[in-house]
Amino acid sequence: MASASAQPALASSVKALIFDVFGTVVDWRGSIIKEGEAMTAAKGWRVDWPAFADAWRACYQPSMQRAMQAAASDPAAWLKLDVLHRATLETLLPRFGLDRLSAAERDHLNFVWHRLDPWPDAVAGLARLKARAPIATLSNGNVSLLVDMARHAGLPWDCVLSAELFRKYKPHPDVYRGAADLLGVAPGELLMVAAHPSDLAAAARAGLKTAYVDRPLELGPEGAREDPAGQRFDWVARDFVDLAAQIGA
Amino acid sequence: MASASAQPALASSVKALIFDVFGTVVDWRGSIIKEGEAMTAAKGWRVDWPAFADAWRACYQPSMQRAMQAAASDPAAWLKLDVLHRATLETLLPRFGLDRLSAAERDHLNFVWHRLDPWPDAVAGLARLKARAPIATLSNGNVSLLVDMARHAGLPWDCVLSAELFRKYKPHPDVYRGAADLLGVAPGELLMVAAHPSDLAAAARAGLKTAYVDRPLELGPEGAREDPAGQRFDWVARDFVDLAAQIGA
Repeated sequence: MASASAQPALASSVKALIFDVFGTVVDWRGSIIKEGEAMTAAKGWRVDWPAFADAWRACYQPSMQRAMQAAASDPAAWLKLDVLHRATLETLLPRFGLDRLSAAERDHLNFVWHRLDPWPDAVAGLARLKARAPIATLSNGNVSLLVDMARHAGLPWDCVLSAELFRKYKPHPDVYRGAADLLGVAPGELLMVAAHPSDLAAAARAGLKTAYVDRPLELGPEGAREDPAGQRFDWVARDFVDLAAQIGA
Repeated sequence: MASASAQPALASSVKALIFDVFGTVVDWRGSIIKEGEAMTAAKGWRVDWPAFADAWRACYQPSMQRAMQAAASDPAAWLKLDVLHRATLETLLPRFGLDRLSAAERDHLNFVWHRLDPWPDAVAGLARLKARAPIATLSNGNVSLLVDMARHAGLPWDCVLSAELFRKYKPHPDVYRGAADLLGVAPGELLMVAAHPSDLAAAARAGLKTAYVDRPLELGPEGAREDPAGQRFDWVARDFVDLAAQIGA
């Protein structure tokens, strides 16, 4: 992967930072496995939670694409990620022996996305970065999901921005440009931080600066992460604390 | 003014709180006077800053009404409050002998709304209320104004919500209902906190709960505040700390 030097002039152009959340700030896979195992162990059930977490996440992109298509012809048909998660959850329950869960238990499980735990460096790194410039989410998660997660995980956001505000999911360019407009900065003054090269490529096409943060365990110890080979980023960091050091925060 | 008892059942129905900001959380008038006087004292100019602050604020409602009318026929014609403030500022400068300010100084003065100081109880009261439920702004100020203000004043918002997100200014009902939708609660589970009876009346019409907080100095020691006579609120509080005590936060 191509790195870039942390030039002071480049860093001084950054007036605000936005963060991808699932996988970049929080460990969605580990959190779902942990909470799921606790739930079914208490019931004496055996469930393959790693496979369940992976299967649920695999529904993510296709469900957003369907929602985008529906909303394209009728903006009122927009669906929050909570609703997409709930629909895909229903399709997975029988396969994992979880159709024994009550409706209330399914609702609770669906909201595990509101209770994801942060990567170990996330809170300390965000605190340092926040001292340098405003920090905000830019996630496909809906606003209430992100608010609940921030309260659960202690994430010190200055502002919660979501695809929901634009009724379009990332990687639509309106989401990135809309975030810059709401934060009162030019696209080139906004730094997008993510562990996913495709998210950063879309941000760069919208005119934003980019910081790639490696999250080797996002898909588990044996999971293959999205390959950033050949892609250029303005910064490449091991974690948020390293990113803070590189941009002088 | 009619008060209401702080019934535990009513308090337990509150799942999130939203706050009017100008006058309710921050002392816009005192902050503008303080910053303005410091600026012109350094230049050796004499300016009637209390009258200036009142005149600028008097432009607020009419300018939003014009912006709403323009946006009604063309949503792309929406104007942020920063832009409305800048336009009304220009009309006031000659009257107060301030047309000697440079363009950069005018831009800086316009952003005084991003640097308003909180009422003395605001930060401590918000911290207590935040421990009880998510707290968010619901202001006609644009998102970046509210983000800058929160960083300046240390306001611990879980979420920054603004009329800008809905491209309609309060008291339009879509703003209050839209806030409930984004926070994932029913309108009746959302408590609007404000020092302005008219804001609370509009919130109540949209189905929200209401808390009136008295800010007797908003318009200065001799200013006449909006009369809440005869209006009912779910809570009436002296300040945010008192409100927190009443709702069990």
